[in-house]
Amino acid sequence: MRGALAEQERPIVTLVTDFGYVDPFVGIMKGVILSIAPEAAIVDLSHDVPAHNVLAGAYFLRAAFPHFPKHTVHVAVVDPGVGTHRKPIVISTRHGMFVGPDNGLLLPAATEAGILATFWVRRRELLPGRVSPTFHGRDVFAPVAARLAMGFPVERCGPLLSAPLPLPEPAVKRIPGGLRGEVVWVDRFGNLITNIRREEILRLRPATVRATGRGFYGRWLSVTIGSFVIDGLSATYGLGARGELLALVNSAGLLEIAARQSSAREGTGLGPGAPVMVKVVNRRR
Amino acid sequence: MRGALAEQERPIVTLVTDFGYVDPFVGIMKGVILSIAPEAAIVDLSHDVPAHNVLAGAYFLRAAFPHFPKHTVHVAVVDPGVGTHRKPIVISTRHGMFVGPDNGLLLPAATEAGILATFWVRRRELLPGRVSPTFHGRDVFAPVAARLAMGFPVERCGPLLSAPLPLPEPAVKRIPGGLRGEVVWVDRFGNLITNIRREEILRLRPATVRATGRGFYGRWLSVTIGSFVIDGLSATYGLGARGELLALVNSAGLLEIAARQSSAREGTGLGPGAPVMVKVVNRRR
Amino acid sequence: MRGALAEQERPIVTLVTDFGYVDPFVGIMKGVILSIAPEAAIVDLSHDVPAHNVLAGAYFLRAAFPHFPKHTVHVAVVDPGVGTHRKPIVISTRHGMFVGPDNGLLLPAATEAGILATFWVRRRELLPGRVSPTFHGRDVFAPVAARLAMGFPVERCGPLLSAPLPLPEPAVKRIPGGLRGEVVWVDRFGNLITNIRREEILRLRPATVRATGRGFYGRWLSVTIGSFVIDGLSATYGLGARGELLALVNSAGLLEIAARQSSAREGTGLGPGAPVMVKVVNRRR
Repeated sequence: MRGALAEQERPIVTLVTDFGYVDPFVGIMKGVILSIAPEAAIVDLSHDVPAHNVLAGAYFLRAAFPHFPKHTVHVAVVDPGVGTHRKPIVISTRHGMFVGPDNGLLLPAATEAGILATFWVRRRELLPGRVSPTFHGRDVFAPVAARLAMGFPVERCGPLLSAPLPLPEPAVKRIPGGLRGEVVWVDRFGNLITNIRREEILRLRPATVRATGRGFYGRWLSVTIGSFVIDGLSATYGLGARGELLALVNSAGLLEIAARQSSAREGTGLGPGAPVMVKVVNRRR
Repeated sequence: MRGALAEQERPIVTLVTDFGYVDPFVGIMKGVILSIAPEAAIVDLSHDVPAHNVLAGAYFLRAAFPHFPKHTVHVAVVDPGVGTHRKPIVISTRHGMFVGPDNGLLLPAATEAGILATFWVRRRELLPGRVSPTFHGRDVFAPVAARLAMGFPVERCGPLLSAPLPLPEPAVKRIPGGLRGEVVWVDRFGNLITNIRREEILRLRPATVRATGRGFYGRWLSVTIGSFVIDGLSATYGLGARGELLALVNSAGLLEIAARQSSAREGTGLGPGAPVMVKVVNRRR
Repeated sequence: MRGALAEQERPIVTLVTDFGYVDPFVGIMKGVILSIAPEAAIVDLSHDVPAHNVLAGAYFLRAAFPHFPKHTVHVAVVDPGVGTHRKPIVISTRHGMFVGPDNGLLLPAATEAGILATFWVRRRELLPGRVSPTFHGRDVFAPVAARLAMGFPVERCGPLLSAPLPLPEPAVKRIPGGLRGEVVWVDRFGNLITNIRREEILRLRPATVRATGRGFYGRWLSVTIGSFVIDGLSATYGLGARGELLALVNSAGLLEIAARQSSAREGTGLGPGAPVMVKVVNRRR
């Protein structure tokens, strides 16, 4: 098998789960993958998705997939419905394949990647003789991902589905003079990450700002979270006094509230679900 | 070396330790392994075995090894006796090799895998010039595992031992009409994992149940933990009302108490050491 | 690319960051590295360096690098100044290359490895079209490390610097009859690791001790931490009564205070910053 692969690209499989790093669940999935695809590079995106938090898992996958080669197979398992009637699926896209439960987890990433087709994983010979009803990560998702990474044709995984099920996620709304979204994740550094995307903010820019060519950063908008009003967007974490709140567009293209060399979560006492408003500021000259 | 290996299987080394993910101990072991076996796939089973908890480490290794190829070398380091007279050993089995301290850690997995022979690792040229008395993971277990993964003959590691030392572990006992075991581990999801194995439960089945062919699941038994009595075995986590306690046989073949979309640990207030009873139920028709 | 590499050594990239294991930051860096160096072995040294703790990150890198092959590229990102004027650098040494911010993080390891030259990473074609001001791990350090691992000549990364900036770290001082240092890290097992190196202790040895040839261990010195005085150096964690404090030189060559089968941190109530004194004991015969 090693020889046969020599002229191909190295298979890559990424994993994002809520299995944690204590129990051996993830190691077991890797054993299954290496048994089928011994040359694979297996990359952990995160296994500390909060238990059963499909929204956080979807955000992680959405942030990470664009940085992998197009032949990568991404496996995501945040799956409160394991053992019920939810379907295991594969979504084939223009930038990678996505394997996991049909509960919305794969959808933001797959949509961004450009969905080509969605398949219900049901083909018998892809799965072990006995599928545990409690550990589809091991018995369904890992073996299917490994076979796809080795070149198994995705359209032979099972029946074509019309579309994956949607992810129940909070929407960003237009309000007079701006946008209203919310905090969806707090990262390691206490940064508050919102669901408001760079593109949505750009569309707010007044013509006068666009005309200057400086555009994005600067003080033409304000960001409100709780009782805090932040004046303008910063380009980096490195500006401002220690502890000062900053608003910036993070490396995943999302509006984020940070505090210089400090934690915005602790500074504001706010977390997931907190409303965030972006408003255009009309300044006098 | 790369060329020489081209026709062989890729070496696989797994690691299970109580070293945690903060300190660089595990990374250092990987540096040692890659220096000897540059092509190796190194897989973390867990490094968050509770410090010095040999029983938990043994459970993790037992649960994981069957899912790896037979040529895999498994390294386990939960080793409160490092630097004393406990021996470093290799156990060669029908399904993988097991490297670690002779304190019972390797025994449940190796026994399940089918022990062929046990060797005391003492051969000088396998070890670095100076062995740290405090970090055998780096200076003994990692280099020996890497050499075994590269094809070094196990019987040349050192003297043959008659058997590895036993693991001090709680036993499952027969009681009138059933079994008495205990909780040995609480996983990430708050599931209470016991030491009662699927096979032991199957042996309890009354002839009337066996005759139906449905057999395993259903209401012919009850499971008692603390003040809670669970009626029957479930096939999956997905059945029952939210928070309801379920008993099931988990993916490692052990009886487990779970709570639907919730934590059985929090629901019961119980953890490792809590007694668990399985009893056959005599129902009237 | 796979074919072209077949006769070379496998590229190895290590990572040490304060990004944690929850967010997908590290997985994203690995995607970038595998896109450039698909055959690379990527090894995590630690991602749980306490946030913005450059001193701890420097200690981890210093402890780990000697155990990797000389062609390894080590990436370290503990970078409170990301997006400000601190420079991204590569230090080429006799034992590996070190990539990271110019804030002292790389210096202890690089010095120990033998610095050959330091370069400011500025060459345009090494970096993506748009560098995020908040995630140089992804946009600067990962792609540069991957290219270096693939053989890109280090001197073409950018301008030569005279030297990397120093690490603000606590110094070990000579005091009458001994040394005074401090605790710099507490490891997973509660061991208190100091900044006092083996070589510094060896230099204290009286001629009478050196003459015996036994030298290092034994009762010719005492170690004082808080109100505790430890008599002599132990060779291993395995000696003494349970909970008894021991002083030993750990596997990284640093003086460490441990407690047998117990936590020295809990036993002493002391942690990073606590002063530690080593004194030569004059014994009567």
